[in-house]
Amino acid sequence: MEVFQTVSSLQAVLTNLSGSVGFVPTMGSLHQGHLSLIKKALEENTHLTISIFVNPTQFEDPTDFEKYPRSLEKDLSMIATIAPKALVFTPAVSEIYRNKITAGFYSFNGLDKRMEGNSRQGHFQGVAAVVERLFSIVNPDRAYFGEKDYQQLAIIRHIVVQKKLSLAIVSCPIVRDKSGLALSSRNARLSKHHLEQASLLFRSLKQARALYLDKDASTAQHHVNQLFSQAQEWTLDYFCIYDEITLREIDNKKTENVRGFIAAQVGEIRLIDNLSFSLI
Amino acid sequence: MEVFQTVSSLQAVLTNLSGSVGFVPTMGSLHQGHLSLIKKALEENTHLTISIFVNPTQFEDPTDFEKYPRSLEKDLSMIATIAPKALVFTPAVSEIYRNKITAGFYSFNGLDKRMEGNSRQGHFQGVAAVVERLFSIVNPDRAYFGEKDYQQLAIIRHIVVQKKLSLAIVSCPIVRDKSGLALSSRNARLSKHHLEQASLLFRSLKQARALYLDKDASTAQHHVNQLFSQAQEWTLDYFCIYDEITLREIDNKKTENVRGFIAAQVGEIRLIDNLSFSLI
Repeated sequence: MEVFQTVSSLQAVLTNLSGSVGFVPTMGSLHQGHLSLIKKALEENTHLTISIFVNPTQFEDPTDFEKYPRSLEKDLSMIATIAPKALVFTPAVSEIYRNKITAGFYSFNGLDKRMEGNSRQGHFQGVAAVVERLFSIVNPDRAYFGEKDYQQLAIIRHIVVQKKLSLAIVSCPIVRDKSGLALSSRNARLSKHHLEQASLLFRSLKQARALYLDKDASTAQHHVNQLFSQAQEWTLDYFCIYDEITLREIDNKKTENVRGFIAAQVGEIRLIDNLSFSLI
Repeated sequence: MEVFQTVSSLQAVLTNLSGSVGFVPTMGSLHQGHLSLIKKALEENTHLTISIFVNPTQFEDPTDFEKYPRSLEKDLSMIATIAPKALVFTPAVSEIYRNKITAGFYSFNGLDKRMEGNSRQGHFQGVAAVVERLFSIVNPDRAYFGEKDYQQLAIIRHIVVQKKLSLAIVSCPIVRDKSGLALSSRNARLSKHHLEQASLLFRSLKQARALYLDKDASTAQHHVNQLFSQAQEWTLDYFCIYDEITLREIDNKKTENVRGFIAAQVGEIRLIDNLSFSLI
């Protein structure tokens, strides 16, 4: 494992490689979800680059950015275990944004309007800016993203098409704990009490899926609303059933490329999850 | 250059390669447009595979399939000159479709409904079937397509997302002759007289672009209609200004990711072309 802090030192090594390069961009605080991306990237490429960079432009609130969990030493030791030949890029903010910290003005064709875009204005502009910058630094053959942040994945795919970037976006399924809770760096901030309740999101999605396929979207929606109205410590932010490519309402009873999305808050922590509602 | 007729012989070589594989799928009758794809693929990858396969499932009419120009020897000698290490795959129809010649039932989310989809029902189902089959055989890191067949490109990008395929789709600009005519295997079938008039498509697009950016879409549309009503041997099939990612009507005066598309018939030959109408 080699660790690089600067663009120039990383690129000096990257330009001399032959073969394909897989890239796993992360904000650190690695968990099994990240490791599944790293394993897939190792399988599919000759070389692997992993970035650890907490990106300021995707946080609305500077305090959130500062509070975001960081565990660089632990992250590096996890990487050393499963990917001992990885090139790890841990740049300072100034290395990524040079003189000015600004996000781009991307046109997302409506993909950023709903769900996470509703409650986190500007978030996806920041994601797009950092992802495009990292792609241009690493120039990978394939970049790996988890389906946990499904809207982010859809937006990144959109940018690749819009900007005609020459890399493949590979998505990996959500990794869950035994209770069904989707792994997330934020889970560490849940109290034991709330952690025990947090499988509610996945349970809601599974029940909604069955109702959607058996009956219809409004029956599923009604059921999820009821589940959350009975869960006193929880506030449902949204539950929606969308076309998983366009992230728009579905016209009729679609049974392929349809997906349920949910966001809810418990205590001070906001969690998100999603599940394919397709038949196959 | 090595030439393979069977999936098994090609794969025996492909599985032992290390490094990235670029893939240029063609129907043969290679021209400078194909060569630009091959050159880009050579630059961006360790290895290169080129397929030459006239795909029956994308022709509506069996006679069209039989009439499609074939020039395997000339194609191979062109490839040998610019890509002497290429792996060339020239399968028989039975090798690609095994027992049955059927196209898949893909959901294209409306991308196949307009323009070429209107006049060539089932065409894109056939394109999707063969492209997915070729991708699964070659398993490339990047596949290269010309912007000449822009709707095909949009549909292939859609399939990659929908099926979560792990490759990058790279598009290359249209290559034109001195008159501005977009290169196409079909141009060989134009009479000298019609060939001299064929720059009308590109000229229309350029004038429409200027009118769109100066004034609006309907002024551009009106002008193209007029140009073709004055061109006695030509029949305009469609001219449209669409969002180049969704291939749908644009809401307002868009200046990015907008593109003009045209199809027209002269004599027995139908030609298509397109041009970015974006500001930058």
